[in-house]
Amino acid sequence: MVAPMPPRARATTIGDVGEFGFLARLLPRLPRGSGVIVGPGQDCAVIRCAGRRWLFTVDALVEGVHFERGWLSAHQLGRKGFLINASDAAAMGGRPRFCVVSLAVPSDYPLRDLTALQAGIVESAGEAGAVVVGGNLTRAQQLSVTIALLADAPKRIVTRRGACRGDRIYVTGTLGDAALGCRALHDRVRRGTTYAVRRFREPSPRLRAGRVLVESGIVSAMIDVSDGLVQDLDHICEESAVGAVIRTARLPLSATYRSVLSADDALALHGGEDYELLCTVPERQVKRLERAQARLGCPITCIGEIVGGRRIRVERPDGRDVILTARGYDHFRPRS
Amino acid sequence: MVAPMPPRARATTIGDVGEFGFLARLLPRLPRGSGVIVGPGQDCAVIRCAGRRWLFTVDALVEGVHFERGWLSAHQLGRKGFLINASDAAAMGGRPRFCVVSLAVPSDYPLRDLTALQAGIVESAGEAGAVVVGGNLTRAQQLSVTIALLADAPKRIVTRRGACRGDRIYVTGTLGDAALGCRALHDRVRRGTTYAVRRFREPSPRLRAGRVLVESGIVSAMIDVSDGLVQDLDHICEESAVGAVIRTARLPLSATYRSVLSADDALALHGGEDYELLCTVPERQVKRLERAQARLGCPITCIGEIVGGRRIRVERPDGRDVILTARGYDHFRPRS
Repeated sequence: MVAPMPPRARATTIGDVGEFGFLARLLPRLPRGSGVIVGPGQDCAVIRCAGRRWLFTVDALVEGVHFERGWLSAHQLGRKGFLINASDAAAMGGRPRFCVVSLAVPSDYPLRDLTALQAGIVESAGEAGAVVVGGNLTRAQQLSVTIALLADAPKRIVTRRGACRGDRIYVTGTLGDAALGCRALHDRVRRGTTYAVRRFREPSPRLRAGRVLVESGIVSAMIDVSDGLVQDLDHICEESAVGAVIRTARLPLSATYRSVLSADDALALHGGEDYELLCTVPERQVKRLERAQARLGCPITCIGEIVGGRRIRVERPDGRDVILTARGYDHFRPRS
Repeated sequence: MVAPMPPRARATTIGDVGEFGFLARLLPRLPRGSGVIVGPGQDCAVIRCAGRRWLFTVDALVEGVHFERGWLSAHQLGRKGFLINASDAAAMGGRPRFCVVSLAVPSDYPLRDLTALQAGIVESAGEAGAVVVGGNLTRAQQLSVTIALLADAPKRIVTRRGACRGDRIYVTGTLGDAALGCRALHDRVRRGTTYAVRRFREPSPRLRAGRVLVESGIVSAMIDVSDGLVQDLDHICEESAVGAVIRTARLPLSATYRSVLSADDALALHGGEDYELLCTVPERQVKRLERAQARLGCPITCIGEIVGGRRIRVERPDGRDVILTARGYDHFRPRS
């Protein structure tokens, strides 16, 4: 008797392992080079040039993945394309300086929209102290905006690595609004979500807060919340080899969030696109953080603390505590 | 009697004006900023950092626009994604140092191909003295590779502006091979085109030649030939407010090109993707260029000269001279 042939294995795809699965395999293998102070795997790379340090980062917005054209104007899309990069610079305390822009647009894209998109990039770059120095324009089926940003690095380097047991976990602003706004735009049920929709359309990168938190030496680790609080906290935990406890009663939620979602904390925990700063602060720095608060330009809230182990525990007031693994936004792994 | 309503005007699209039509409107309006020595509209921007100058550029390869997946391996695609950026640095005499990579890939893209693609980028960057310091990965319908590159700038800045009447026009390597290779892959008629297909798959950015030509002070203007000789020469002519004469009998053509296309010079004049250097050399520098030739690492050929006016005249041995306007590659304006 001949054993039946096993079905031919389908090749593993990026959709099977997801963005972070791929990066986990890739990053350890990448070669380092001279002049590279911090390599891939952080919000920005840190490179050295003529004795001075620069942050270098790239990010993209793709139609059908990050937005639909009806969800925001071309000008807003241009602004957002720059601002999400600025948020990466904020997470390491940088000052945006120079950017190059790669636009991919369908042939039938209206010229006035392309002009508005470009104007939005230039405008938001200018507001952040940066200038568009070059670009590339190509045809594509999906509209997309890819921007690479160079920022002045602060003297102190803060990455996702550095959180220690006992550190407090802080987050700026409020959580979950952009995800709520995105859902409202997607479902076309926008009653009461004006503020949330605005947060989706126009991120507020915390550049000033990032600089103060890094330069003052208050924070031990920092990241911007782009893929969802739990997932981005998991990046800090993984890099720092620690665990975390989050108290949902402390999550900073907007009036809009509370009125639309009441006690449902899913979007605040996992929503993504907040572009707030998530940082860890050693116990001995908490007093200094309190004194520095007025200089941050935004609220900052303690939502939990770093613990041993490698798990993230979410404590709810009703005692329905859960142990979470990261479950934030991954383009390649649609949520179940 | 009521006059009939005129048909509602369709909005002008990017496809109507093309990449260069859009850029001609956009570039003069872009704000300049401190630290920017050369702004948008050249092969690279030149920025100043701590008293030192850097070149900064971005370029993209998009499936269905620049390539089809069957035309080259994932590893070759990764290499090409880096090399076309290196060619922009070569055109200004730069040394590639740091790059960030933004990949957009379909969910069903095989993981092994993504790994090979990334390895191709890292490998070709390493060969050019550069290192991949960061990146971004997103889902998209079309596979695309976008890379932003920082390169050490030479002491002397050479752009597309600077050509003067009487300057000789030189080009490195041979012309039209990559376009011939692309056509062979597209038409699936590959007999005798092995060399041309290789030139399409693997550009050879002329980094060494670019540095020698810039640092020696031999060239008055330079560009890399990515959109076709005539179109890229037209960029030099436009920026320098001059015209040009090209003698087709002098065009450097490979044995493959001559054997497949014999006297048809269309691909050499307009083909694109050559990634050779096109430069102008003042009469008084010609002797120095001849002495420097051995150090370029590639052949260089005089193909014509800069003249007054704003037209490009193509002189053919049979007297069929033509006056050309730019007619190279524009993604948005398919050739008639």
